[in-house]
Amino acid sequence: MRVLLAAGTTETALIDGISAAGAAPELMAHTPSADVEILTYGEPTASPVTPVSPTGCPTPAAVTRAVREVVDFELAVIDAGLTQSTAAPTVDLGVQPGVDVREQAAVPDASAAFDRAYDFGASLPDDEVMIGETVPGGTTTALGVLTALGEPAGVSSSLPENPIERKRQVVDEALAESNLEPGDCDGAPLEAIEAVGDPVQPTVTGIAAGALESGTDVTLAGGTQMVAVAALLRHAGIDADLSIATTSFVADEQGDRLAETCDRLDCELTVTDPGFDAGDHVAMERYCAGEAKEGVGMGGALSLVPDGRMGEVRERLETVCDRLGIEADAAEGNSEP
Amino acid sequence: MRVLLAAGTTETALIDGISAAGAAPELMAHTPSADVEILTYGEPTASPVTPVSPTGCPTPAAVTRAVREVVDFELAVIDAGLTQSTAAPTVDLGVQPGVDVREQAAVPDASAAFDRAYDFGASLPDDEVMIGETVPGGTTTALGVLTALGEPAGVSSSLPENPIERKRQVVDEALAESNLEPGDCDGAPLEAIEAVGDPVQPTVTGIAAGALESGTDVTLAGGTQMVAVAALLRHAGIDADLSIATTSFVADEQGDRLAETCDRLDCELTVTDPGFDAGDHVAMERYCAGEAKEGVGMGGALSLVPDGRMGEVRERLETVCDRLGIEADAAEGNSEP
Repeated sequence: MRVLLAAGTTETALIDGISAAGAAPELMAHTPSADVEILTYGEPTASPVTPVSPTGCPTPAAVTRAVREVVDFELAVIDAGLTQSTAAPTVDLGVQPGVDVREQAAVPDASAAFDRAYDFGASLPDDEVMIGETVPGGTTTALGVLTALGEPAGVSSSLPENPIERKRQVVDEALAESNLEPGDCDGAPLEAIEAVGDPVQPTVTGIAAGALESGTDVTLAGGTQMVAVAALLRHAGIDADLSIATTSFVADEQGDRLAETCDRLDCELTVTDPGFDAGDHVAMERYCAGEAKEGVGMGGALSLVPDGRMGEVRERLETVCDRLGIEADAAEGNSEP
Repeated sequence: MRVLLAAGTTETALIDGISAAGAAPELMAHTPSADVEILTYGEPTASPVTPVSPTGCPTPAAVTRAVREVVDFELAVIDAGLTQSTAAPTVDLGVQPGVDVREQAAVPDASAAFDRAYDFGASLPDDEVMIGETVPGGTTTALGVLTALGEPAGVSSSLPENPIERKRQVVDEALAESNLEPGDCDGAPLEAIEAVGDPVQPTVTGIAAGALESGTDVTLAGGTQMVAVAALLRHAGIDADLSIATTSFVADEQGDRLAETCDRLDCELTVTDPGFDAGDHVAMERYCAGEAKEGVGMGGALSLVPDGRMGEVRERLETVCDRLGIEADAAEGNSEP
């Protein structure tokens, strides 16, 4: 199995109240670059930032890396609009960072990015690929394209309290700035991305479309952002078999809506529970409390773990957290003797 | 074990009579990009070129890939001056393609490339790395820097008949254009590279220097081009333990000289024979006839094969050759019934 990871940025993440990144612009810029170093080398190497929340919750890259150290899979990272350089190897498709969705065009080069990503996806000799993403602000842009397409799906959040009303407000502003009403981009996925999306979307959608066209099985590794990609693919008229693999944290938050949406989009849905309630490390506690939830291919990677080996993944996660400088009981309120 | 592969180009490869690439400029430009796709995906994906000689000898990338399919190792490709894009993920250190050594400066940004490569090498968390190269024309530039440094080592060739006199003539012209005599760059490795080297040299030398400085064991995977890198490291005053791992094809051609040179440079030498004389596939026959010999980390990769498993590598090489469109008996003169 080859895991493809599209890593990019959008200024949308800097909008106040949307993402933890809003309060710390350098986190927005550096997180995807650090994530792909963690995935590639096991820890940030060139990145000056280690993506860990103030409460001690590590980026999902830590979990995906832990899985990789147990089951091993081939990895190819695609630069889908990074603003900061990374020491990890990346495929260069010439994708530019995304603009604030409240500007006229959020992804001015959406169509060209899709075309290059399509060719890349079609060129892969693999029988099956899994495609993940890392892009701060990505659930807001997911809500953006879903709304533009007229799809009634919800989106999750990396925060325990989903600022969904704030996201809807931003999407409303974004659509208005592009002179669009909800549903106006029905059947026009690239217009939706260009107006209110992010650069990871045409990259993942293009790779998936190209891979499916050439007979490669595709699993979208992620939560509601991958629901948005599935919707984009369906609105592009692609009716090939498609799977989404996500975490129990997203599934628990989304309730029945996630399965219903996947059903409507004719997507198989795989939900994997990493059993973090069995651990007492702060990283696992934070995921169980609803932080982070998904990203960097986490749900897809977890689906690759054979029965009976999830305990190894949890142990390995503790090792990865050590490397990231996260102490097992580092959470606020956990420091009492 | 992580294998790092520095892939680049130099216009030196286009000089008549030096390399097979001289007769086909598009091969010079595309070969390293195709090599890294073969190593990453198992076959060229975006590359319009498949590096196979007219007699049916595949690029050493095919052998390194065959090893990878048997023993598996982590791979990170570094863009050390590619002129053609590649669909393989690469680390971007901002290294520019090399200029013809007969110009004033062959690698104008040698010093900056070394510095960035050093930081990259120092940042790696690995206990040990192996560093390979792919750069058409690289044995001529190896002879260039060895001569500039005053090192009496010889260089091999990817051709059965080594055009060594032609290479010496080019190096003499190159030194004269830079107002240098042999040995003038003793103790000044970056000056040697800038004057008569190629962009892969500061990249590999920098990565090795940084990795050694941070306590990572380094094996240089290659033949006489890696002897040149070892000499550059020693002339930079780096006296850490260093190993070279190459193929029996290079060792056979170089005779006692290779071991003597490694001894003088205080480098451990590992020579691995892939046992191609046991096979009757044209690819193996061509290597036994002295074509290609080494490159794309081949000798280093072969050294990773556990005892008793080289037969699997040879079988796998046949599979890789199938993918590259090389028929088992494709050699000229082998077509009789």
